[in-house]
Amino acid sequence: MFKTIEWKNNQVVFLDQRQLPLEENLIETNDFRVIADAISALGLRGAPLIGVGAAYGIALGAQEALSGHRDQYFSFLESVDQTLRSTRPTAVNLFWALDRMKKIWKDAEMQGISPHDCTEKLLEEAIKIHNEDIQTNQSIAQKGSSLIQDKDAILTHCNAGALACSAWGTALGIVYWAALQEGKKLTVYADETRPLLQGARLTTFELLKNHIPVTLITDNMAGYLMARGQIHKIIVGADRIAVNGDTANKIGTYSLAVLASYHNIPFYVAAPLSTIDIHITSGEVIPIEERKPDEVFYFGEKRIAPQGIEVWNPAFDVTPHQLIRAIITEKGILYPPFVEKLTLLKQDE
Amino acid sequence: MFKTIEWKNNQVVFLDQRQLPLEENLIETNDFRVIADAISALGLRGAPLIGVGAAYGIALGAQEALSGHRDQYFSFLESVDQTLRSTRPTAVNLFWALDRMKKIWKDAEMQGISPHDCTEKLLEEAIKIHNEDIQTNQSIAQKGSSLIQDKDAILTHCNAGALACSAWGTALGIVYWAALQEGKKLTVYADETRPLLQGARLTTFELLKNHIPVTLITDNMAGYLMARGQIHKIIVGADRIAVNGDTANKIGTYSLAVLASYHNIPFYVAAPLSTIDIHITSGEVIPIEERKPDEVFYFGEKRIAPQGIEVWNPAFDVTPHQLIRAIITEKGILYPPFVEKLTLLKQDE
Repeated sequence: MFKTIEWKNNQVVFLDQRQLPLEENLIETNDFRVIADAISALGLRGAPLIGVGAAYGIALGAQEALSGHRDQYFSFLESVDQTLRSTRPTAVNLFWALDRMKKIWKDAEMQGISPHDCTEKLLEEAIKIHNEDIQTNQSIAQKGSSLIQDKDAILTHCNAGALACSAWGTALGIVYWAALQEGKKLTVYADETRPLLQGARLTTFELLKNHIPVTLITDNMAGYLMARGQIHKIIVGADRIAVNGDTANKIGTYSLAVLASYHNIPFYVAAPLSTIDIHITSGEVIPIEERKPDEVFYFGEKRIAPQGIEVWNPAFDVTPHQLIRAIITEKGILYPPFVEKLTLLKQDE
Repeated sequence: MFKTIEWKNNQVVFLDQRQLPLEENLIETNDFRVIADAISALGLRGAPLIGVGAAYGIALGAQEALSGHRDQYFSFLESVDQTLRSTRPTAVNLFWALDRMKKIWKDAEMQGISPHDCTEKLLEEAIKIHNEDIQTNQSIAQKGSSLIQDKDAILTHCNAGALACSAWGTALGIVYWAALQEGKKLTVYADETRPLLQGARLTTFELLKNHIPVTLITDNMAGYLMARGQIHKIIVGADRIAVNGDTANKIGTYSLAVLASYHNIPFYVAAPLSTIDIHITSGEVIPIEERKPDEVFYFGEKRIAPQGIEVWNPAFDVTPHQLIRAIITEKGILYPPFVEKLTLLKQDE
């Protein structure tokens, strides 16, 4: 599996996903601003990985704060937190990880713990978040693979794979576990996922590295593929799940869920509990990021549409819980109704 | 409106749609092979326009045949017909136009009409097909506009506009008539239509030239737009319609029709009667063109996916008649059940 992110010599090393699959560039940085920029621009992407990246961002910010005036240590951390918090609005793992980190430095401030010791604690917590993510992904992969039969053809959208996490992945983690650990013969269909082509660039790339047969389609082909009976299951990741099960995920997920329902194909969401937002009771109030029109107007350097028209470019949509057959978490596979089970599991955390 | 194609000084002049919207290149040719290549490569595209282009291709072939040995005139026409016939398999207007042309030269051969006179007749027939297409489009536009209300937001897929026809267009013809002749205030949402981006490149281009507000979306955004209540009607063109109303159209149309049905949004197909294939009773037997993987792998010069993976690239899909609210033809708006009405209209032709 990939190392998408690593803590090494007091720096963060991460794979810049913007140039994949054509170039595999590692970025090594001790600057939390580089992490923030990479999250904004999708160099570091995927809800679980954004959480891990943000946690390391705080650790880097703390190191930097140490070199400044002692009195300003905690106010500097406050600004680091704000910078990271404002990178992307939808994936809740970002806020979940930043909240965990904030609890450490807020407690330290209250308890009069020294900046040096607080910085150590912050790094420990970031590494813990990172290691937990690896464990969590493996559990999701292992539990979810019970839903997969030999010879299944699985459709996925965007990239909810090893590249979106610390290891394994969520949706693709299940595919890897079923194929690589259990020897099931699987085929994956990958939606290219316009505008940023995470499916074409990232999902195909990592499936290929893991020797899983993958067929790339454009997003508008998925329905016809279902109509022809060529898809047995659909598995996607999630950026934020409301307590009732409504799920925000990459734009296009909602259409797939409607199409899956029409064709009676199981539609599964795979996500760690950190993706569940206990404060949000339904998908209607999940904030949806709208990104700049140029992502649609341009393809790399090449402009594809004329000047003078409008573009609508939401990065996510919301799939209502009624369209979701099950939510696969590290604690088990949840079937509807989701609200009680999700609430209980979140309280146990 | 555009002149997509014209007969001028014994040549065909056409707008090469491959470079739009960045370049507006006219190609002037007396070579039917140039027409055939342009149809194959989508330089000349859109079911009605393919029909007109193919008819002029025969006229050019006849001129060329005149300069050869008199005995070989009709066998040369046979090969011209074969070349044009093998350019694309799905749009039936191609075969419809070639059949009309073939009737002329087959009758001429039977009746011993001279190559010179036959060539004249063929040009007359091609010009007739061209003029009829303009009339037909105008009728579709005018009739269809009765379905459109002031302030409607209309979603369309691919390009079924003036660029796909000799004038007006089918789906967009209705928009033009409603907006420009009847003064209804409309908004159009254009699916970009991967892989060849006819929506982003062509639909936006011609709506902009006609001062109709247009918002570009990627194909996977359409469902979410419907869920938000932002689409009032969906209108698409067609490449081939079976007698029961099943409709082959650009890949992605089927998904839109399912989504429209789920959201109870009227889904209309606009097409001339030449698009109805009286020999095909259901969509299941419509031949669906699969195009080369590189259309998906590359974006212009830029490769977007790794080597070593598969691609599935059907150019069309089939929307079952149950999902179609009405078919708008030059003879009127047809509501289900379609089979008797379509059969009767085709018999009247």
